[in-house]
Amino acid sequence: MDNRIHNFNPGPAALPLPVLQKIQRSFLNYDDSGMSITEISHRSKPFDEVINDAKARTMRLLKLDDRYDVLFIQGGASLQFSMIPMNFLPDDKVADYINTGTWSTKAIKEVNVLNKKVLVAGSSEDKNFSYIPKDLNLSSDAVYVHITSNNTIKGTQWHEFPNTQGIPIISDMSSDILSRPLDISPFGLIYAGAQKNLGPAGVCMVIIRKDLLERVPDNLPSMLKYTTYAQKNSLYNTPPCFAIYSVQLVLEWLEETIGGLEKIHDMNVKKANLLYDIMSDDGFYRGTAAPDSRSLMNVTFRLPSEDLEKRFVAEALEHGLGGLKGHRSVGGCRASIYNACEIKSVETLVEFMKAFEQKNG
Amino acid sequence: MDNRIHNFNPGPAALPLPVLQKIQRSFLNYDDSGMSITEISHRSKPFDEVINDAKARTMRLLKLDDRYDVLFIQGGASLQFSMIPMNFLPDDKVADYINTGTWSTKAIKEVNVLNKKVLVAGSSEDKNFSYIPKDLNLSSDAVYVHITSNNTIKGTQWHEFPNTQGIPIISDMSSDILSRPLDISPFGLIYAGAQKNLGPAGVCMVIIRKDLLERVPDNLPSMLKYTTYAQKNSLYNTPPCFAIYSVQLVLEWLEETIGGLEKIHDMNVKKANLLYDIMSDDGFYRGTAAPDSRSLMNVTFRLPSEDLEKRFVAEALEHGLGGLKGHRSVGGCRASIYNACEIKSVETLVEFMKAFEQKNG
Repeated sequence: MDNRIHNFNPGPAALPLPVLQKIQRSFLNYDDSGMSITEISHRSKPFDEVINDAKARTMRLLKLDDRYDVLFIQGGASLQFSMIPMNFLPDDKVADYINTGTWSTKAIKEVNVLNKKVLVAGSSEDKNFSYIPKDLNLSSDAVYVHITSNNTIKGTQWHEFPNTQGIPIISDMSSDILSRPLDISPFGLIYAGAQKNLGPAGVCMVIIRKDLLERVPDNLPSMLKYTTYAQKNSLYNTPPCFAIYSVQLVLEWLEETIGGLEKIHDMNVKKANLLYDIMSDDGFYRGTAAPDSRSLMNVTFRLPSEDLEKRFVAEALEHGLGGLKGHRSVGGCRASIYNACEIKSVETLVEFMKAFEQKNG
Repeated sequence: MDNRIHNFNPGPAALPLPVLQKIQRSFLNYDDSGMSITEISHRSKPFDEVINDAKARTMRLLKLDDRYDVLFIQGGASLQFSMIPMNFLPDDKVADYINTGTWSTKAIKEVNVLNKKVLVAGSSEDKNFSYIPKDLNLSSDAVYVHITSNNTIKGTQWHEFPNTQGIPIISDMSSDILSRPLDISPFGLIYAGAQKNLGPAGVCMVIIRKDLLERVPDNLPSMLKYTTYAQKNSLYNTPPCFAIYSVQLVLEWLEETIGGLEKIHDMNVKKANLLYDIMSDDGFYRGTAAPDSRSLMNVTFRLPSEDLEKRFVAEALEHGLGGLKGHRSVGGCRASIYNACEIKSVETLVEFMKAFEQKNG
């Protein structure tokens, strides 16, 4: 199909081919409007249907009841790092943050920039963030507990969420949202930049428990208040229409073609196991994450030498397998296998890895 | 061509058909990468070329020298309303704002939210914002003077910019950026949501005089500091890649197919005159903007009755002419004729208007 590669990019990442094809087909004339989806008004009936359908599908997939709302905000997870304390952390209160890697560290930094009080209630920094800490020191009076559910760069993932005794958890789920069933009850807010599991870059999905909106202070800029988005169905100003439309189509695919979160989770487990099964502590491919903290989304691994890693990435690309270089901050290799990554892509990768080991092991 | 309509939407607005076709053609495989433009890494060579080309074309089209930088930021003009005072208006200083309509009013409101000092140095509120004020009361010690160069809703446009005696002008140019040649020298910062003259919604272009970056305070959230974008070539976090790519193609079209700003300005004058020529103070079609303040981008007009206006908009759509309803806050009719609106669309509209007048006048 058009010489497409097996795409293991960490984000922006692979999108489902049927979604791309649907966008392409109607790109000059969306839904008989005589306009491209990029040319229609965000205040038109066709776009209302897009954004409302995206919300409704998210609610159904995650089994959310009407205590929750779904918002679409620009600026990525990085802007959420600041909006969360601006909206929910008064100057005289404290929030707990659990530090599991690069993105948690950035989230903590933005609380400090605002001169607000943050307590690091757990960290895996002692072992280069290669595991999810079980030993937490949660404050009894924290206004929220912040976690990063999946750590794209370090290849770790929370498989069981901490018991916060009713204090709402706020989670960056950019890299594993809608990749598995989720019990929403401990969460006050979930945010996810779209460009891994939801769609193209340019929109961040925020799922918020509505009672938290009452805590939002008045004196914040309009675009930085969650209430602005909640009151206007994310249409206070012109939203990133194309990105939201693409998210809608990805959600449609997840619900109707895949069949929901149990189904995609089974597929994700299968894909990850194919890769983890050929890794071992003393083998040619060594996984970098502690086995009980391994991510189903980002499989990080090392080869015996950096020179071999470089050749591995280059030869893989020649075989049509792209995006396997580890993050520039940690090196090594990484296969990002989000929802849209097909099992046949992982099977092709595993075959290549076995052949590469045979040749170089 | 695919039953496309003549699109007079105020924004998101018409895009050049060759741009849409180019996006469509390569949507499954961008530049032989084997991936969609929505699936490639923002840290890859292909995307570097996209963002650097978009910057270079903007610099060439506006004849900017290296005292200026071009940034791409999310959140639309509405987030700029807050970022500008956060970055450039210290608590003990004042900024002048000239109020020419809905968007200026919102910009002023966001300064007030931050509890900073704003002086309204000119306003046309007395006549429902139907003109650009000439009589200004500029402060000698303002840190900047803010204007809205084109008022999408009221149909007015600055044709000569105020003399601010060296105080940098900051302008919202969302609805007329790159629609005419511009002498950049009085401007410190120009911002423009893409969805009118630049591309699809989801990215805001900011042109900034670099020396202003030295005024940015340290204690701002990373995503709200202009320095973050300037230091990282707008790649501090994942940018809205698809929107930036589309902007690049629109700039390429403007530079190579149209031939630059003098050419597009001639075409824009011609289009606007076709419409203004059939309007008069006591005629069937009455322009709402003062003649010396008329916008070349948004032609606002009334018919003898609201009932006729409703029928006009409905019948126009039946004739394949869309987006002619005035903004919900002011009523009436409006034809938005940005760069991508072709002269044959305006000619078709004028013909329809003459026939409608004959039938109903």
